Amino acid sequence: MVMGDVIRSETKRRGLEPDAKNTGEVMKLLRKEHGDAAVADLCLKEIEKTGAMKVVVDGIRSMAEVDEFRKKAEVLLVAVHASPARRFGLLKERGRKDDPLTYDMFVQRDRRELGVGIAEAIALADETISNQHATPDRLAAEMASVVGHWKNVPN
Amino acid sequence: MVMGDVIRSETKRRGLEPDAKNTGEVMKLLRKEHGDAAVADLCLKEIEKTGAMKVVVDGIRSMAEVDEFRKKAEVLLVAVHASPARRFGLLKERGRKDDPLTYDMFVQRDRRELGVGIAEAIALADETISNQHATPDRLAAEMASVVGHWKNVPN
Repeated sequence: MVMGDVIRSETKRRGLEPDAKNTGEVMKLLRKEHGDAAVADLCLKEIEKTGAMKVVVDGIRSMAEVDEFRKKAEVLLVAVHASPARRFGLLKERGRKDDPLTYDMFVQRDRRELGVGIAEAIALADETISNQHATPDRLAAEMASVVGHWKNVPN
Repeated sequence: MVMGDVIRSETKRRGLEPDAKNTGEVMKLLRKEHGDAAVADLCLKEIEKTGAMKVVVDGIRSMAEVDEFRKKAEVLLVAVHASPARRFGLLKERGRKDDPLTYDMFVQRDRRELGVGIAEAIALADETISNQHATPDRLAAEMASVVGHWKNVPN
């Protein structure tokens, strides 16, 4: 479940082009209209439809969202971390439609996400994995190790 | 340079017992009196006295402090991360005089430090190292690797 997909769908549903500016505004609007866990609530509805018992959720932006998921399931919160410079480089490589085009736009997006509480979700994560120098294979191996720890050593 | 030592000295200088509550209050007072980078300024004065060219600084609590150090030197910001439960366990093991005694006091300390901006400093770090399952030897090796990357591959 990619939380950003839910925001992109909602942006289109409102008749807007899902670019960086509009998805950012819809993210803020959803919170204003339905509270800090609005995006998590939309995701939970989607997840419930699938009936899945194990779900990977990508795109947590605040502890309010984590708390919402924790009402419904056992959650391992994993922060995949890289420096701002590295994250900007990775976004340029990916080149998705709603990715920020310039470093200034990227810094603005970071500010918006810090504003909704992403830093607290990183600081209070159960696990962190560094994506500063990792290859995709290495990341996958570290994620598997972290999930293994969790399943064998519950809190 | 342990930034907490500067706060503990300052707490004693003000005639107070350097316990968890008083050091927390002096941390906030210093910022109120001398701005968000107050503790960094006190550290910089101490560092300048030593004439050292390479310094490890422990205890960053906000990007305001990082920015202050960056005015004077090239800085690699490394976040050593562990979950709240693991950090509380490590503090109990260490048992320093000003460490929080109960989980409630620990959560209060976390809130105080989140309040001055520690989460942003973690989120925007140049590097993170997980201390969730690491031994001290492993941590030292990862820190050496991170510093090696920095010296060979400057941003």
